[in-house]
Amino acid sequence: MMEELFLGIDGGASVCRARLADSAGLVLGEGRSGPANPRFGLEAAAAAIVEAAQRALSAAGLPAGAIGNLQAGLGLAGVGQRADRERVLAWAHPFGGLALATDAHVACLGAHGGNDGAILVVGTGSCGVALVGGRERQVGGWGFPISDHGSGAWLGLEALRQALWAHDGVVPRTPLTLAVMARFQNDPEAAVAWLDRAVSRDYAALAPLVVEHAEAGDPIAEVLMRRAAADAAQLIEALRAAGAAQVCLMGGLALPLLPWLPEAVRQTLGTPRGDALDGALILARRSGQGFG
Amino acid sequence: MMEELFLGIDGGASVCRARLADSAGLVLGEGRSGPANPRFGLEAAAAAIVEAAQRALSAAGLPAGAIGNLQAGLGLAGVGQRADRERVLAWAHPFGGLALATDAHVACLGAHGGNDGAILVVGTGSCGVALVGGRERQVGGWGFPISDHGSGAWLGLEALRQALWAHDGVVPRTPLTLAVMARFQNDPEAAVAWLDRAVSRDYAALAPLVVEHAEAGDPIAEVLMRRAAADAAQLIEALRAAGAAQVCLMGGLALPLLPWLPEAVRQTLGTPRGDALDGALILARRSGQGFG
Repeated sequence: MMEELFLGIDGGASVCRARLADSAGLVLGEGRSGPANPRFGLEAAAAAIVEAAQRALSAAGLPAGAIGNLQAGLGLAGVGQRADRERVLAWAHPFGGLALATDAHVACLGAHGGNDGAILVVGTGSCGVALVGGRERQVGGWGFPISDHGSGAWLGLEALRQALWAHDGVVPRTPLTLAVMARFQNDPEAAVAWLDRAVSRDYAALAPLVVEHAEAGDPIAEVLMRRAAADAAQLIEALRAAGAAQVCLMGGLALPLLPWLPEAVRQTLGTPRGDALDGALILARRSGQGFG
Repeated sequence: MMEELFLGIDGGASVCRARLADSAGLVLGEGRSGPANPRFGLEAAAAAIVEAAQRALSAAGLPAGAIGNLQAGLGLAGVGQRADRERVLAWAHPFGGLALATDAHVACLGAHGGNDGAILVVGTGSCGVALVGGRERQVGGWGFPISDHGSGAWLGLEALRQALWAHDGVVPRTPLTLAVMARFQNDPEAAVAWLDRAVSRDYAALAPLVVEHAEAGDPIAEVLMRRAAADAAQLIEALRAAGAAQVCLMGGLALPLLPWLPEAVRQTLGTPRGDALDGALILARRSGQGFG
């Protein structure tokens, strides 16, 4: 009989990652594949998950058939939505067992080593999760533009709004507004045409301009970074009010936002102990009690 | 030979209106038909324009064939965009002559009786136009959510963002946030599903909730009305800086916004002398000099 093995999966909109570990927690191998967001088709997501798993098995020198022995913990973007969650749970997966949670949930488990705590992820979007006393509490994460406070997409949208105002002479032009308009050939009509197809990722692509120009002292960029940080601070406060003693700030905007957070908030932030794959492995191990 | 007649057309996303007048300015008849936004198909827009014109002729007791004697002034939503404008100008129209401008341009002509001045239209979206010394200057009007400051769509979006924050416990719930969440069965997932198909009109449908609750003293609604009014005031200031001695505030949100504007700004606002159809007739008359 084969040893009990655990597989952590972190599936997102651009990449799916897998990490294989034994019952002692020793990492045996890792693998990665393409996008795994069930919102854009379960079949493609399922294929990406299995491919990442097989690559992790292969990296560990294990046969493909061992997949049936794995207890898998799956952190998936989008499964906060009931319909998507049910679609994934109905999947005839090849694993020995499968536990499902959102990508933010496993990131929180990983950040706190399975203990109580919270995370605020600020990247293209934003989402907060607190795990306290076995209960999960989500703040934000309902999508752009109705949610995603303090995120890259929000920064990009507000930068473009300010750039168009500056172009129209409503507010003074700054290096930031000129840089944003340059992305649209200094032509508002190009922005209107872009708008027809723009999704949150496209807005977030403007956020690095805000970060750079804020560091250089651009007055509009500074205001936007301060507003994003104020929103992030309010989300962090809500997570603490939900009972999380420690909040970890994660995601691509975490570092750029840090200097703009109030000192009092910055001091309460913790350092993540592990990543989302560590969290997915914790999920797998917990759900796998009694497995085999 | 028939007398020279003038036709004003105001074509928008939901209705197309026509007004027929003689060379002395006497109104002979009016007509209306369906949507006439060239952005969603020139053929449908052209058919709506001709139908409204025929109804105005009929109301004036004139034969359908008289359409070839009309000098038409056309105010059309969307023709601020080069491609749409060129599509309309290429139209083999049945009129004796045709002059084209945006709906905001003819509204401005009408509001100031053809004299210099400016308007700020705040409805589903927002757009400012100043006509000074024969030159046109546009502020805003680049679409939602990258423009449309102080508009109904903006109010609706911000109300929903606050409602989701209140639902998540980030800010205290108020009558406004409860009323907004009730539109989504108190379920953020319903808002996420709605988001996939929501256009500016859908966001603007939430604006009346903000207006009502602000009047009733709801603290979040008051903040949003104040922010919308501050944006409107800044747009009005830009129009005055462009040389417009008087600015008229128009559109469905004009009256609700009024009490939230700074007193100093409110005092500079003018009362429109005429509507967009009057402006379209002015456009027709000006372009028709030498016609016949």
